[in-house]
Amino acid sequence: MPAKIGIEKKDEFYIARCFQLALKGKGYVSPNPMVGCVIVKDNKIIGEGYHEKYGEAHAEVNAIKNATESVEGATLYVNLEPCVHYGKTPPCVDLIIESKIKRVVISTIDPNPLVNGKGIEKLKNAGIEVTVGVLEKDAKKLNEFFFKYITQGIPFVGLKIAQTIDAKIADIEGNSKWITNEQSLHYVHQLRHEYDAVLIGSRTAKLDNPNLTVRLVEGRNPYRIVLDSTLSLPLELNIFSDSNKDKTIVFTSAESFREKKEKIEKLDSLGIKVIPVKSSRKKLDLKEVLEKLAQLEIASVLVEGGGKIFTEFLKRKLADKVYVFIAPKILGKGIQSIGDIGIKSIKEIITLKDISIQNFGDDVLITGYLRTD
Amino acid sequence: MPAKIGIEKKDEFYIARCFQLALKGKGYVSPNPMVGCVIVKDNKIIGEGYHEKYGEAHAEVNAIKNATESVEGATLYVNLEPCVHYGKTPPCVDLIIESKIKRVVISTIDPNPLVNGKGIEKLKNAGIEVTVGVLEKDAKKLNEFFFKYITQGIPFVGLKIAQTIDAKIADIEGNSKWITNEQSLHYVHQLRHEYDAVLIGSRTAKLDNPNLTVRLVEGRNPYRIVLDSTLSLPLELNIFSDSNKDKTIVFTSAESFREKKEKIEKLDSLGIKVIPVKSSRKKLDLKEVLEKLAQLEIASVLVEGGGKIFTEFLKRKLADKVYVFIAPKILGKGIQSIGDIGIKSIKEIITLKDISIQNFGDDVLITGYLRTD
Repeated sequence: MPAKIGIEKKDEFYIARCFQLALKGKGYVSPNPMVGCVIVKDNKIIGEGYHEKYGEAHAEVNAIKNATESVEGATLYVNLEPCVHYGKTPPCVDLIIESKIKRVVISTIDPNPLVNGKGIEKLKNAGIEVTVGVLEKDAKKLNEFFFKYITQGIPFVGLKIAQTIDAKIADIEGNSKWITNEQSLHYVHQLRHEYDAVLIGSRTAKLDNPNLTVRLVEGRNPYRIVLDSTLSLPLELNIFSDSNKDKTIVFTSAESFREKKEKIEKLDSLGIKVIPVKSSRKKLDLKEVLEKLAQLEIASVLVEGGGKIFTEFLKRKLADKVYVFIAPKILGKGIQSIGDIGIKSIKEIITLKDISIQNFGDDVLITGYLRTD
Repeated sequence: MPAKIGIEKKDEFYIARCFQLALKGKGYVSPNPMVGCVIVKDNKIIGEGYHEKYGEAHAEVNAIKNATESVEGATLYVNLEPCVHYGKTPPCVDLIIESKIKRVVISTIDPNPLVNGKGIEKLKNAGIEVTVGVLEKDAKKLNEFFFKYITQGIPFVGLKIAQTIDAKIADIEGNSKWITNEQSLHYVHQLRHEYDAVLIGSRTAKLDNPNLTVRLVEGRNPYRIVLDSTLSLPLELNIFSDSNKDKTIVFTSAESFREKKEKIEKLDSLGIKVIPVKSSRKKLDLKEVLEKLAQLEIASVLVEGGGKIFTEFLKRKLADKVYVFIAPKILGKGIQSIGDIGIKSIKEIITLKDISIQNFGDDVLITGYLRTD
């Protein structure tokens, strides 16, 4: 990069490169954030690295290790505040100080209470020049799963709805194969790779008997969460019998959990966790489901249906983002994607934020957020 | 245009110019088709014209009149077969023959039984070289309203639906202002200019009290059709009282037409037509409504709601095209855009054809056809 470009533009350029590197960890680092790091000396990148896998080295460590010359006096760019605590690895801040890095540029503070500004403070105390807030909004969006999880103690929730123009997700018998097209399905598999877990209701589990695995793109399979308040789903379902079954988790009512010991034992012998939560009128408490998932270090959940589950997540204001795939088809009668969520008047209408619109062949995907932070 | 370009490409080039010219008549020529005409001599356009207004000169006449030199020996391009009959103006074929045009290139035969190949025959008999079928598909789409009207004897029907992502067109009280945005509304006004008439149900007339006029774009106002089986809509409504009220037409049941003489007289005194049609269980026979509109030389109708009317048009297979504006909003409970249209299983799902997708700010417009011809 030419020396005469202003320092702000330079900082943005290298932070953008950090984002690119960070994204390589997508799907593999959760519940950690995705982090990329670039080390620059004399206007030249001398080292790059990213957090590749949960439990393994942080981005800063990899960048310093990969440097092609001494990092003494260099500037280190990173999209998240370096850690100051002993987690699975030693604190990055100590390594940065030891390496005699001169300046550190950070997109955002790490909201993790164990860090949360302490890393920056320690760097400054060591005499390192620190710049914070470069492309901060983008950095927060990049790690939106992590930010939600770490600040609110529950996973980031996305609703994935595949529907006709008239918002039907299945016919009256519950048949939904196939409303949206192959290209849309590819994207859904990509989402499954990105989210830690997918979640469905018992009706969808029974009617569709889905695998909920990643097949159409390269990636790792998510946890599969099924809500079965009466614990009555048959063991023959794919999620209970395929090679991936130890990644299935069943939530049920406290009552069923007490009464259906035999079923629980069978599931347990298959490697399938059964977790009880509060319920009322056969509806499991979704907030508690999310809290329990967070305890399992699941930082993001993609809800894949059906209509009652989408409706309940929206009604309880527990959804963060919606992905609505709309196929140019009409069903008329059928199961609607979203039912009564407690809105009585158009004045209370929910307007999605930060909309994006993509086409997949003749299907349209509308993505938006339920709130802005 | 260079002489060495192949004749087929040349023909397409000049026919495409005819389309451009034809479109200038949009909104002003119905129930006639939109027609443009180009006269070419020695690879140079020497005359252009289009059908500007219903009842006035045809495109061919205008092009010949506008020619800057003698058209003798020239090639005439036109997107529809020249007429051979005396309508509001004398036959264009005779003028072409008299003008000693050497060759005529036509996109499509005029399906009007009064023409339908007879124009081409007469030109050929006069020794003129005739080429037919250049960009034929585009020419048919350009005049899709006319083609439907002239071949089937009923107007082309478009459904304009403005809805939330979850396919609600209003809240439970019927309030629908405003689900879609200003940019979408602009496009709706453009559509109103293009269609001969807009049509609404009595519930929409009462709840929304719309004007159904063209205000946000330049254009002419369409006829306003309201279905009021019991003839009970108040005369205070905008469609009955504004300056445009003589363009309002009311359809009612034969029974109400017999019994409500006084109301009919009042409407009549305002310049508003009341037309009786068959009905069953308060539902007017839509096929008959369309037939009566065709008799009034209305070649295209844009149906603007509500949900029951959309559903009935789809159920009776009387819709040709749908325009679905989707706002990135969620209502949950509310009035759905499309209800039971008789589809029982996903196997019978309607897949729209020839889809186009446009964005209006954060709104998406999905346009598609109910059938392909």
